[in-house]
Amino acid sequence: MEEQSIRVELSQSKKEKPKAVELVFGRIFTDHMFVMDYTEGIGWHNASIVPYQPITLDPAAMIFHYGQSVFEGLKAFRTKSGSVQLFRPEKNMERMNRSNERLVIPPIDEAFLVKAIKKLVEIDQEWVPDAEGTSLYIRPFIISTEPFLGVAPAHQYKFIVIMSPVGSYYKEGINPVKIAVENKYVRAVKGGTGEAKTGGNYAASLKAQEIVEKEGYSQVLWLDGVERKYIEEVGSMNVFFKVNGEIITPALNGSILPGITRDSVIHLLKHWGLPVTERRISMEEMYDAYEKGELEEAFGSGTAAVISPIGELYWEGKHIVINECKTGELSKKVYDTITGIQYGKIEDPFNWTVKVCETSKVK
Amino acid sequence: MEEQSIRVELSQSKKEKPKAVELVFGRIFTDHMFVMDYTEGIGWHNASIVPYQPITLDPAAMIFHYGQSVFEGLKAFRTKSGSVQLFRPEKNMERMNRSNERLVIPPIDEAFLVKAIKKLVEIDQEWVPDAEGTSLYIRPFIISTEPFLGVAPAHQYKFIVIMSPVGSYYKEGINPVKIAVENKYVRAVKGGTGEAKTGGNYAASLKAQEIVEKEGYSQVLWLDGVERKYIEEVGSMNVFFKVNGEIITPALNGSILPGITRDSVIHLLKHWGLPVTERRISMEEMYDAYEKGELEEAFGSGTAAVISPIGELYWEGKHIVINECKTGELSKKVYDTITGIQYGKIEDPFNWTVKVCETSKVK
Repeated sequence: MEEQSIRVELSQSKKEKPKAVELVFGRIFTDHMFVMDYTEGIGWHNASIVPYQPITLDPAAMIFHYGQSVFEGLKAFRTKSGSVQLFRPEKNMERMNRSNERLVIPPIDEAFLVKAIKKLVEIDQEWVPDAEGTSLYIRPFIISTEPFLGVAPAHQYKFIVIMSPVGSYYKEGINPVKIAVENKYVRAVKGGTGEAKTGGNYAASLKAQEIVEKEGYSQVLWLDGVERKYIEEVGSMNVFFKVNGEIITPALNGSILPGITRDSVIHLLKHWGLPVTERRISMEEMYDAYEKGELEEAFGSGTAAVISPIGELYWEGKHIVINECKTGELSKKVYDTITGIQYGKIEDPFNWTVKVCETSKVK
Repeated sequence: MEEQSIRVELSQSKKEKPKAVELVFGRIFTDHMFVMDYTEGIGWHNASIVPYQPITLDPAAMIFHYGQSVFEGLKAFRTKSGSVQLFRPEKNMERMNRSNERLVIPPIDEAFLVKAIKKLVEIDQEWVPDAEGTSLYIRPFIISTEPFLGVAPAHQYKFIVIMSPVGSYYKEGINPVKIAVENKYVRAVKGGTGEAKTGGNYAASLKAQEIVEKEGYSQVLWLDGVERKYIEEVGSMNVFFKVNGEIITPALNGSILPGITRDSVIHLLKHWGLPVTERRISMEEMYDAYEKGELEEAFGSGTAAVISPIGELYWEGKHIVINECKTGELSKKVYDTITGIQYGKIEDPFNWTVKVCETSKVK
């Protein structure tokens, strides 16, 4: 199959860029977006980079009714030398195709879309901020656009990429968070859509999140939907525990999102020769480890915060305080290493970074 | 709180209406739609009936990313005398508010929206077809519209109602369907969103549906997500079994959609003095009943098809043929009675119908 070319229509006016201190997550968008259409019989076509603009859809468009959609999240980083680079973008496109498979959305050409994302970032390179901890968040997503009120896979879709300059996820660097273990609501179950990055999983999470926030916790730790005993993930991050020197994380069981940061953490720990295990972990087991004084650290991993240390877990009336609610040594080391590679401060022995452009103007 | 008024902007041109024989489900829409906005701090406002038109949203609108949405489905029927009536519309608005609660969407004024729907149907009354088995399908839905890439409840929403003239769900009246029991995929689990009418549940169902269709079955029968033993619902309908004279249907357990047709069927059966039970039903129990010759009938219930007799269930290599794959007496009686009430052919002892207008022109 011949690779598509990308039509480019540059914006006539440029928006004002926010100051580094004003950056928040996902509120401001760059000057351009990437758009591509799918029509049954034609396939994916009309790949274009166009000025950032609203989408116009029929009110019967299936996305508004039956939630057939997938998305991804990755970042572009500005290095000290001024160059711009992505972190493992091919992994995002690979996962998007796995999500597509589950949601019955036609597959995309992964390599072509990595190129398209690079081209879009290059065009909007001035939007990649250079202050400490800032980056350009990239959001590829696919929505079903066919106007039809029937429960069936759509015959028309849009693939879109939008980008938002974002600040450091935590204002004062990494800071331990308090997490409540969720007993009533369930995020996902085996046989469901938990391992796909699709809207419905996030919609399902809002209620529990709202409740725990009122009680002073920043996120929810999800248990499995069958036995309500085994740890799945935390908020929208994967989770790691350090118990008596061993690092353990829930095995990918079909209902857990296969995080790219999770994969990078495991890779790194193995590279350092540390014992890391992917397996089923019950909350009871973690509580026992805590009581024995063996629960040394816990942290979440995800694109937005990279590493988010867990200072306290609230479970069935018990407050499990981890590492005196301070950022652990390992959490810090993993955070420093991954962000170090992302910002080009340290060597990238795994070829995780993909260069977009050498040097460029920063606003 | 003072009730909102509804601004009306009539369409300058009228679309051509399809012929009764051309009617399919959910492809053609009427001349007008109802729209209402929600903004935090203001509440629901700007209730309007406007010409049917596209919706324009920012590509960062949360509906495209995190699936925060709910919908409803009901119908308007034309009676023999030419009047137009709705079937239990207050139940749809009541359920929509229960779905809103689960999806963290602000509640709506149920009585006001029943009025709004009546007004919309009245304006587009010529679109209510009069051929046997046809009706006007009404689709209220709410989408999160705030442009923000954060997993949190939105601060802006749109409530929209669109309408589509639809034909008889089954071309030759009611006809038994073949159903495959799903063992791999799960629609919903307790603690999830199964009892809410939200897009994610339908997105999750597409994969299993696609597989069984290729194998010659028209729908999936969903089992519970925990033990994978208990019957939940069929496709997007609730399900009933007649075993040795008793009618049983799965109890609403938190993962099953509380169907309004389901409720009407139970009401009717009780009214007739028939034994009807809502409880947990395992597939094994139904197979045993079949082997003993006691599984007399099975049918699905929902707004689209009203009653859909099940002629065969395929489960773990076994073909369970029910009532010789013919429409059972009870299924037929329930179908005739509910549709009889809906079309005003028989008396409505339960006050289920709501008159929209007395007589009106039909195209």
